[in-house]
Amino acid sequence: MSVSQAAGMLKQAEDILILTHRRPDGDTTGCAGALCRGLRQIGKTAYVLPNSEITRRYAPLIDGLYPPESWQPRFVVTTDIADFNLFPDNALMYQDRVDLVIDHHRSNPGIGRMNLIRPEAGACAEIVYDVMMALGITFTEGIARCIYVAASTDTGCFKYSNTVPHTLRVAAACLETGLDGGEINRELFEVKSWPRFQMERIIFDTMRFFHDKKIALATLYRKDINRVGADMDDLDAIAALPRQIDGVQAGLTLTENEDGSVKASVRTTKEIDASAICRKCGGGGHLRAGGASFPPDVDMPQAIQLILQAAEEVYQESRI
Amino acid sequence: MSVSQAAGMLKQAEDILILTHRRPDGDTTGCAGALCRGLRQIGKTAYVLPNSEITRRYAPLIDGLYPPESWQPRFVVTTDIADFNLFPDNALMYQDRVDLVIDHHRSNPGIGRMNLIRPEAGACAEIVYDVMMALGITFTEGIARCIYVAASTDTGCFKYSNTVPHTLRVAAACLETGLDGGEINRELFEVKSWPRFQMERIIFDTMRFFHDKKIALATLYRKDINRVGADMDDLDAIAALPRQIDGVQAGLTLTENEDGSVKASVRTTKEIDASAICRKCGGGGHLRAGGASFPPDVDMPQAIQLILQAAEEVYQESRI
Repeated sequence: MSVSQAAGMLKQAEDILILTHRRPDGDTTGCAGALCRGLRQIGKTAYVLPNSEITRRYAPLIDGLYPPESWQPRFVVTTDIADFNLFPDNALMYQDRVDLVIDHHRSNPGIGRMNLIRPEAGACAEIVYDVMMALGITFTEGIARCIYVAASTDTGCFKYSNTVPHTLRVAAACLETGLDGGEINRELFEVKSWPRFQMERIIFDTMRFFHDKKIALATLYRKDINRVGADMDDLDAIAALPRQIDGVQAGLTLTENEDGSVKASVRTTKEIDASAICRKCGGGGHLRAGGASFPPDVDMPQAIQLILQAAEEVYQESRI
Repeated sequence: MSVSQAAGMLKQAEDILILTHRRPDGDTTGCAGALCRGLRQIGKTAYVLPNSEITRRYAPLIDGLYPPESWQPRFVVTTDIADFNLFPDNALMYQDRVDLVIDHHRSNPGIGRMNLIRPEAGACAEIVYDVMMALGITFTEGIARCIYVAASTDTGCFKYSNTVPHTLRVAAACLETGLDGGEINRELFEVKSWPRFQMERIIFDTMRFFHDKKIALATLYRKDINRVGADMDDLDAIAALPRQIDGVQAGLTLTENEDGSVKASVRTTKEIDASAICRKCGGGGHLRAGGASFPPDVDMPQAIQLILQAAEEVYQESRI
């Protein structure tokens, strides 16, 4: 469906509820916050469903937009949700009645009655921006902040290859509202919390290298995570560190969960398929970023062996 | 003067030489590389003056554009050069015969016969882009690469507050040529050389904090720099590290030079004036970034005392 068709649907809709995905990131949250504010601006009743996994970083984008207790929606929109298994628990009741899907994930099978899916968009926020423009919504600084955070976080501050010309033009429109992009980005990308700073030190000091330094392994033990008080926001960015080192083609980060089980985050350069490494450990993902969760009986030393073996196999296969 | 007037001058000009500034960065180099290629495309003879301080990072932007030995220019252009004291030694002979200045530094007094200075531009490359468009130059991928690197490096990959809507729109035009911005940015902003990785470890492990962790001090001793083999490219980005830590308002980095003298790099948040700290040590700079070189007889322990005292004074003054 086209942007103008999606806008047409929203123009007809009343009592609109917007859903965000599990482990909400800047894109899903920023899209929801922007769309909700925009719809209210043109006279709609609109809310964002609370998301219990929201982190301190993105909570401000949708704070105050939650529905009153007994309110019932008549129109349900999802932003940046690729599949039903990404619905938070409190959104499951809407699974069979999603009216409009706005998304940029190629894998989205079309989980709504109507689906506006544009895989060429770097961030879902670009599509939400287009829909809002088609609705004649005035692009205020408050709305621009949501769209900017969404576009910026989903593209590594416009650094990654998924950034397209439209991403940059939407960001330009955001700055034109008077938004201080520099201050926003400083918070998002530069400021390191004390726990994160300390976790980075640990990572740097314990990183190990294999295969002529083509493979880097970092291990985050629970006792260290707890000692420095790191949370999900702190740990999120750390998986990207090992791959940053010159010559490293596969950066493997193993994190010990609260229950002692281990999960792997894999980041690769273009030479190696990250999802192939993760599939060998029961996980999956994309070409350059993937993840896997080991069974509960696999402890850290075993997980190290398994992920290294998987990486070595994929590394060898990639050289054939 | 206007963009179209500058374009008009270049259209009339023949045998054009383009100058870059001392310690050339991505902006001066990218501007020169783009303009030279663009002028050649419309039939001009154009060269970039070699710059002895060019680093491996930016050299490819102007490689192969140097004039033959006995060639003499009839028209001289500077890109991103704010003042005569930024002329490399081999450019001094052109000091009194600069025909056209293209720059974005507010401090530029107008050092040429004609001066196109637009302080509102995040990068000088935005102005060069506009001039090239006014000249009807086709925006090829090779030219776009120069402009993209220039705009990206001068704005911290579009992260800093000096990024304006036009910066992003010019970058969008660059990506439209088919350029892989992600690969370029990975090289520029993500990949850490081994020496830099090791210097970062040293910085992280030796950083000291003062004034309720509002002031962070990092010290780079020559023996460590030499041991890990770090060069200017490696050290450049390191001065930004101390300020990245949550709550730090002034990040002070002291580097021991080859001759044993010490230089200071200061990065601050909006609360503290970096140039004020540096002025107290005989240096200067901008509001959030400054530098100073201590006299040869000041060794590292003394420099530490002096910079800390300066920072504490400015910190106290800022609280009044």
